[in-house]
Parts: sequence; structure tokens; C-alpha cells
Amino acid sequence: MTTFDGLWADIAEVGRDRRTGGYRRFVLGDADQTLREWFTGCATTRGMDVDRDHNGNLWAWWMPEGASGDPTNAFVTGSHLDSVPDGGAFDGPLGIVAAFAAIDALRGEGHRPRVPVGVVAFSDEEGARFGVACVGSQLSTGALAPARALDLRDAEGRTLAEVAAGAGIDPDRMGRDDRIADRVGVFVELHIEQGRALDRLGRPVAVASSIWPHGRWQLTFRGEANHAGATLLTDRHDPMLPYAATVTAARDRAWAHGAVATFGKVYVAPNGANAIASAVTATLDARAPSPTVLEAMTTELFDAATRHADDEGTELTVTTESLSPRVDFPDGPRDRILAALGDLPVLPTAAGHDAGVLATEVPTAMLFVRNPTGVSHSPQEWAEHTDCLSGVASLTDVMREWTAP
Amino acid sequence: MTTFDGLWADIAEVGRDRRTGGYRRFVLGDADQTLREWFTGCATTRGMDVDRDHNGNLWAWWMPEGASGDPTNAFVTGSHLDSVPDGGAFDGPLGIVAAFAAIDALRGEGHRPRVPVGVVAFSDEEGARFGVACVGSQLSTGALAPARALDLRDAEGRTLAEVAAGAGIDPDRMGRDDRIADRVGVFVELHIEQGRALDRLGRPVAVASSIWPHGRWQLTFRGEANHAGATLLTDRHDPMLPYAATVTAARDRAWAHGAVATFGKVYVAPNGANAIASAVTATLDARAPSPTVLEAMTTELFDAATRHADDEGTELTVTTESLSPRVDFPDGPRDRILAALGDLPVLPTAAGHDAGVLATEVPTAMLFVRNPTGVSHSPQEWAEHTDCLSGVASLTDVMREWTAP
Repeated sequence: MTTFDGLWADIAEVGRDRRTGGYRRFVLGDADQTLREWFTGCATTRGMDVDRDHNGNLWAWWMPEGASGDPTNAFVTGSHLDSVPDGGAFDGPLGIVAAFAAIDALRGEGHRPRVPVGVVAFSDEEGARFGVACVGSQLSTGALAPARALDLRDAEGRTLAEVAAGAGIDPDRMGRDDRIADRVGVFVELHIEQGRALDRLGRPVAVASSIWPHGRWQLTFRGEANHAGATLLTDRHDPMLPYAATVTAARDRAWAHGAVATFGKVYVAPNGANAIASAVTATLDARAPSPTVLEAMTTELFDAATRHADDEGTELTVTTESLSPRVDFPDGPRDRILAALGDLPVLPTAAGHDAGVLATEVPTAMLFVRNPTGVSHSPQEWAEHTDCLSGVASLTDVMREWTAP
Repeated sequence: MTTFDGLWADIAEVGRDRRTGGYRRFVLGDADQTLREWFTGCATTRGMDVDRDHNGNLWAWWMPEGASGDPTNAFVTGSHLDSVPDGGAFDGPLGIVAAFAAIDALRGEGHRPRVPVGVVAFSDEEGARFGVACVGSQLSTGALAPARALDLRDAEGRTLAEVAAGAGIDPDRMGRDDRIADRVGVFVELHIEQGRALDRLGRPVAVASSIWPHGRWQLTFRGEANHAGATLLTDRHDPMLPYAATVTAARDRAWAHGAVATFGKVYVAPNGANAIASAVTATLDARAPSPTVLEAMTTELFDAATRHADDEGTELTVTTESLSPRVDFPDGPRDRILAALGDLPVLPTAAGHDAGVLATEVPTAMLFVRNPTGVSHSPQEWAEHTDCLSGVASLTDVMREWTAP
């Protein structure tokens, strides 16, 4: 059994829903805490120091011989441990397991790193619990203001501030981490591909070129609750109608702009079978190749949604939850990776990542591992074992080259 | 203060959500149990015997002087105590408060009834907890099989059998109540109107002609959960799309047939902002003037829904939850009511009622009280105080005439 297999087996059942086969690993919930303890155990058994930063991100350090004090100019790799509801096994954990496996491989060779090697587990990448993605990395770069983060609420109404404090993270200390620029020489995140490009190319591993700009908006259509039988169609102000028309319009506008737009999260009030809804609240996730296209698409969509809301005598409010700029990964690290690994496919992605967030502060790069069905954020997410090992081998090669004496 | 006002004030805060102003009175939950205790107290202070039948319906009896044994050929009035989520104050309780107030009025006159007077509170009329309406009356007439009822589950996964047993109702004894035909000479249900017809006519009270046939169907669109960013539109099997198209088609088909069709209850799995849904489950409530029209409308709609599901590469399953026939209230009781009350409007309704369920077993009739906005199943449901008192006066007149020595 390879190191990879053992690490992978350790966490295979953590937070797994036996009925769906999917994972429910939400930030600072039981499963996430178990995974954090596992991360700390992996580091400790390898003699690596672990620290949890003031935003809840975990860092483990393999220091060069004789080095002392805070790590500087490190080669950092890793990803995240949390999942979406009913997420797959690979999205996040593959990058962390690969990081420890690569370190084991280099140690087995007797490799002595010139610069520190860091493994990071960013907190709350998916945003499944509080609705905002990449909370840990965004707090650390200052992209997310602590005041806004601390007021976010989970489905039970608990604030991020309460949940953090309950886990021993001081809400008053959350915010920008000025050490990152000195500590991190490069951040290379290995991640399962969340599309089919590698499968179509017949290749196991790629390097990232860019991340599409990405926004989330909450749309609330407010109408008038009423009896589903006795209310004439002419007397209705049913928010389900403009919501439905907006879902159709979103697909249409996405086609027209070569973009994507998705409504995957919906709450209906009061949600009774024989009551016309009083309100429908839905989250739009939209991404496009450029900020200009994203803005054009969403402007057209919100105009259409407003017209549909007016037609039914309902009201629409639109709130921006997040808006992430396009990320172009820098040439330097990618060129070094391509030099170390030979001719790899270079792919854009429409999925957000902590590597995209960190790109404003330090050089970053990403490696993608083939996903034969392209399915992600689902129990059907998959990567072949041989492709995972190819990913580990690639990360090992990059780590060796970057940290060679 | 009239008797009506005191009774009304007793229950005004029970199960009321302070934030919305609506009521959350679900069968055998805390609020419903409080209302049941209140009902028993109202009966007891009036010297009426109360029994809870084997289906959980409450009956209180004002017996003729010297009568003994089980009531027969009674004048029964009443309605229900439960509500939809965030329902109004009047839907159900108005009929029960009016029943006790009418009895008080007749007693004040020294009236001595020739036949027993019954007040009934049917259990679980709205079906908000277990998804099927008129459970208490349907069990008693045999329209709902106990085996099916007992397996119904609430949102917490508890079966009706468990909940009933927890409230001291023996699940093994639930089912048809053969005593109804002998006990109930007539059932007259007073209810707030759930439309604007009386308002348009400028009249406070009407008598019912018929109830439209009514069905509920559960539609489940199953697709493939996937990443909301990285999944190309061509690779998607998003169940939200055919659901949305079906909502639009339902309104269109309802217009075409002079009927109503509503989607007010929706569950999305996994309901994550950055995940394409794996499944959308929604309840269709549809009603039409005749069974033929209802069937034509729903057949066209399900055909359209199937096409929309196919177009997106998703699967649709349709399950019938309930199907209630058209009810034509019999001429006899209505003619007697019209004779007692003079020229009243005679109105059909598209709302289901326990009086419609009981119509298969015994003569039934309904009185409607004006609702100035027509809003129902909402905190905005309203009846003016003077109209409530007109309703009580009408019910008192009918009760006096029917039970006169």
C-alpha cells in the first residue's frame, strides 16, 4: 500500500452520508473537526510543526535543516477539507493527501529542501455552512472583511462569530494575515478537475491558466400568500411564477454569452402544498470568461427577472453575495512546473479555488487531476486511482525541483 | 363583550408566530393540543359531554332534555382547529367559535333543542404536517385508508402512527366511523370565504353550492448533481430547468381550462449555492370545475413536464397524493337554510372542506363569511368583526330552526 492509499483510507468515512454516499463536511462541524485532528496527526507523525492561524486555516511545516524562526519563502501546497452538501471525496482532500504523500516520497529519497515546505488546509472553502466561499483564504488576504464574515449565519441561525468562538478561534483577531507574503514563496494547489477537459484530451494531469470571474446573488421574489384553490388566477401574486421564468432566462442568457448560470439553492415561504407562496428566495451562481461578459449576462438576466416579477405583481430584490474577479495565474510558477513535468495541458477553469484568492498576494499555480465523468459537487465525483498517483508524482516532481538545494 | 369576542380572544395567541403574525397550528403539535384543551374546556363549562373519536376528531354534545345514550340525528356544526404554515386566524377556528357562540345565544333565549346539537373539531384538515388534507374526516368516512394514513411522515420523519400513539390515539383503531350516519342528521360548517365573491357582491354571508374537484400530485425531477461553475451547459442534467418550465406550463394550462394550478411547496437536493441540483421535488395543487376538466388539464401538464424533463436529460416521476371528487351540496339542507335566512348568495368554492368529505355519508351544507381581500392561507386573511357576528347570527338562526321543538 502506498502512502497515498493509507492517508486516503484514513478519511474515507469521515462525514460520509451512508444513504447518498456523499460527504457533509461543513466548517467547524463534527466531520470538519475530525479531519482537522487527522491533519494535525499527519503533520505530527512527520515531525512537522502545525499552527492554526487566526482565521482557522491549518499550516504544517517541513523546515530545512537548521532553520529556525518563522518559515519564509516556502513552497506551500494543500487545499481544503470541507465539502458541499453531498459532495464528492476528492474536491479538497485530494490536494492535502497528495501534499503529505509527496513529502513522504521526497523524504524516502533523502531529499533535503532548501526552503520550507508547507502544507495548508484552508478553512471553509466551499462556503456550504455560511453561504460565502473561500472564507479562510479571503479573510487572510483581506478580500473578505472580518465584520462581514462574523455576521454570516448558518441554517440554524448561528453566526460565524459564535461558531468560531466555540472552536477556540477568537473572532476579534480574525482578518488579514500579513505574514503570508513573507511565508509563502509559491502556493501550488492540486485539485480534481471539475469538468471533462482532461478526459477529452486523454491526459491525467494539467496545469491551470486562469479562473473565470464568478458571482453569487440572492434573488428574493415577494408576492402574497393565498389559498391555492380559492384564489382566482387574476387575483394572484405568486412569486413562484417569476422565479420559474428567471430560471429559464438564466439558461438562455448563459447560452447566449458562452457562460454558465445556475439556480441550485431555493427556499420557499411558507412552503405549504395548498398555499400560494409568499416569497421565493434563490441563489444565482454565475460565471463567465471575463468580467465584462459576466456583467452583461447578469444585467440582462436581472432586467428580465424584474419584468417577470412586475408581470405577476410581485417584487424582486437582488443582493450581491460575492463577486470574484478573473484570476490569471502568473507565468513564472507555471513555466517552472511545465519545465519540471514536460508538456502538460494548460486549462482554464470556472471553479473558484483558494489558489485564486491567494493569487493577489503571492505567486500561485494549480495542478488538475482527471475526472473521467466531469461530475463534481456530487457523490458521483470520481478520479481513477492511477490518476491520483499521477497527480502525487507530478506534485512530488514540482516540490523536488522547487526546493532542490 | 359578546360571547364570540371572549371565545375569539381565548385563542388569538395560540400558535401565533410573532414575526409573521401567521399561525402554525399543526395536528397534535403543541398549539393544536392547546386548542384541543380549549375546545374541551368550552364544552365542559357549557355542560356538554366531549368525546375524542378513534381518529382524533373532537365532538361536544348539547343533548335534548331527558335524552340518554348515543346522540342520533343531531344538528352538527363546527370546523377545524389546525392551520397551514403561517395561516390566518379565521380558517377553521371561526366555525368552532361561531358554533359555541350560537349555542350560547340559543341558551340565552331559553331554546330547548328537539334533537342533539353537536360541535365538532375535525383533526388535521389542512394536512400541513403529513401532506394529506382532511385526514380526520377522511378516516371517519373511509375515504382515506388507515394503512396509508399511518405511514405518512412529517418533516422530522415521524409517522402519523407514532404521533397519534404519542397523543394517546390508538393507531390500530383508526379508520371508518360507522356511527356517523346515525349520529349526524346534518353537518353545517361555517367558514371564512377563501375568495372575494362576497366582497364583490357586497354581502356578509353566503351558502355553498359545490366544491370543485381537487388533486395533489408530487412531481420529482431527478438530474445529476454537479459543479455549478465547471460543468458545461451541454454536460448538465439540471432538474431545476424542467421544474421551472413546468411551473410556467401549469399557469398556462390553468388559464386555458378556467381552472387553477399551483406549485407552493418545493424541496431541492442538495440545495447548495454552487451545486447543480440532483433533484427537485414539488407539489402540484390543481382544481377545476369538473373532474373532466381537471383530468384534461393535468394530463396536458404532465405531458409537458415529461417533455421538459426529457429535453434536459432528467427523469420525472409523478405520484398522486390525493384526488377529491366534485361535491354538490344537497338541495335539502340548503333550501332549509335559505328559508330560515332569506335570500342569500349561493356560491361554489374551489377550497376543500370537511363538509365536502362528510357529504358522502350525511347531508351537509356550508355557510361562508365575507373575506374583504379574498386572501387566505396567509397572515393577511381577514374578516370584519361585524361580518363574523353576522355569521354567528346566521348559524344561530339555522340551528334554532333545525332543532325547534
